[in-house]
Amino acid sequence: MNSETKDESRLALVIHGGAGTIRREEMSLARETAYKDGLQEALGRGWEILKGGGAALDAVEEAVRVMEDNPLFNAGRGSVFTHDGKHEMDAAIMSGEGLRAGAVTAVSLIKNPVTFARRLMEKTPQVLVCGRGAEEIARELGCEFAPPEYFHDAFRYEQLLEARREQEVRLDHSPGKTLGTVGAVACDARGHLAAATSTGGMTNKRFGRVGDTAIIGAGTYADDRTCAVSCTGYGEFFIRAVAAYDVACLMKYKGLSLQDACEMVVNVTLREMGGDGGLIAVDGMGHIALPFNCEGMYRAWITQGQTARVAIYRD
Amino acid sequence: MNSETKDESRLALVIHGGAGTIRREEMSLARETAYKDGLQEALGRGWEILKGGGAALDAVEEAVRVMEDNPLFNAGRGSVFTHDGKHEMDAAIMSGEGLRAGAVTAVSLIKNPVTFARRLMEKTPQVLVCGRGAEEIARELGCEFAPPEYFHDAFRYEQLLEARREQEVRLDHSPGKTLGTVGAVACDARGHLAAATSTGGMTNKRFGRVGDTAIIGAGTYADDRTCAVSCTGYGEFFIRAVAAYDVACLMKYKGLSLQDACEMVVNVTLREMGGDGGLIAVDGMGHIALPFNCEGMYRAWITQGQTARVAIYRD
Repeated sequence: MNSETKDESRLALVIHGGAGTIRREEMSLARETAYKDGLQEALGRGWEILKGGGAALDAVEEAVRVMEDNPLFNAGRGSVFTHDGKHEMDAAIMSGEGLRAGAVTAVSLIKNPVTFARRLMEKTPQVLVCGRGAEEIARELGCEFAPPEYFHDAFRYEQLLEARREQEVRLDHSPGKTLGTVGAVACDARGHLAAATSTGGMTNKRFGRVGDTAIIGAGTYADDRTCAVSCTGYGEFFIRAVAAYDVACLMKYKGLSLQDACEMVVNVTLREMGGDGGLIAVDGMGHIALPFNCEGMYRAWITQGQTARVAIYRD
Repeated sequence: MNSETKDESRLALVIHGGAGTIRREEMSLARETAYKDGLQEALGRGWEILKGGGAALDAVEEAVRVMEDNPLFNAGRGSVFTHDGKHEMDAAIMSGEGLRAGAVTAVSLIKNPVTFARRLMEKTPQVLVCGRGAEEIARELGCEFAPPEYFHDAFRYEQLLEARREQEVRLDHSPGKTLGTVGAVACDARGHLAAATSTGGMTNKRFGRVGDTAIIGAGTYADDRTCAVSCTGYGEFFIRAVAAYDVACLMKYKGLSLQDACEMVVNVTLREMGGDGGLIAVDGMGHIALPFNCEGMYRAWITQGQTARVAIYRD
């Protein structure tokens, strides 16, 4: 299935910018347009890499970086505030070639957590690092840092004050309640797969809480023999369901198609547990799936010979 | 398979105290006896709970606590030192009933990390917490703390100095190189399963490095419908292989027996990746498996009607 022959017909890229209670009636046209533009830009930048013969790994890193840099999305710049008024970000990246992975959790002030995750994967024996120790490693790896102001977003700060008033832990809720994460999955011309995910977590979250994003197998997974998956949703449920790897197992051990495996995980397993959210996935033939079990998911996708699509609601 | 009828015939408890390069010729008789006594005590305390009609969850927590309190094992008291001369401990617990889970990583000065993980599971919405934020939560949950001296062990400190001299990150290597972790899995009379794992990580490890122990699906997993698993080994490989959940998937999606699923993961998948270590597992009928792909694994097991067994080497 994944020979080293170049075959452009399987090129595919899917990205998401979070899922949740996204209601059309609560969304201004200007805001909707801004989200769609942001998704379109991230998709375009990743697609350029794939079309130019680049690797899936480069495409997903680039698409996620673009969303991390965009304050509209809850990752990198624009990350939500923790209860203490700080930012704690998580990210992961995985290559379907050789099951290599890198993931970082509870890091602050790192401009692009996904790039840190990739360097960790490529330049160290560690797969997962957390907190201040992780930041020291990021510095050694030459990752770019940014001052607290860079991450500060007035809208996110208002969300924190509101959540504190209501004493509620919020999944990123702009404009409704959304489960803020960004992610990308891709299949390149050689049939190699990759997945990347990045998040600022939950508004007003407890300092130290780790979601599914940085957990290989839960929020992020890739294996050339099956699929690449990036999840977005209520992280605790995705961890307990080992959601991303479950998609791969349903394919390799039960013979399900990518679409059926994704539907089973999102609309049966997670739904039964009460785990709101969705995921994006791609297989080595360039098939894609984007199921979600809540009102909406910010998403965009493109496959060889098809025009790019951007969507928010279930329509 | 897992009815609520009480059936003592399926009672089973398996524990491990780490795996790795454990060589008979490097082990003194006194040390071997001490390890065996430690395993025997932990097994006995957990078994008492199961025999008394107690829950698998209580049995695995108790068995792991006993090993955390014993400085011979690399968990709780007796944890190895990080490069900075501190202790950073990880632990996880999972109940096969309802897939509930709690896990903590990079915590210091908490006497019994496994008990903290259980309280996190039972009293908070979080599944995984890390670092200083985790310690604040532990305090609120009333977990017992201990001063640095409590965790200090002269033998472990000598290991750190030696590893620093050799500039090497060590998996706990007493007396040879062992992959220091403790864990327990159990099946109770109602057919409920549980798994728990706890570790002090790797000698001279980078501050912030997270292994597989606290990762649900990698080092720890339990589902009444399939199995409970606790792993010990080179954590990065177990994370990339999503090892514990892979055992469950081979059973539920491919129909493999517990034994065959465990052999496949340890002796095929992990071995091919170069991931040294082993795991212990139990299913809802009380079948057990304890495969490892390295020289030895500190282990002990007991099932209904059989006498307790303790072993270290492959014999």
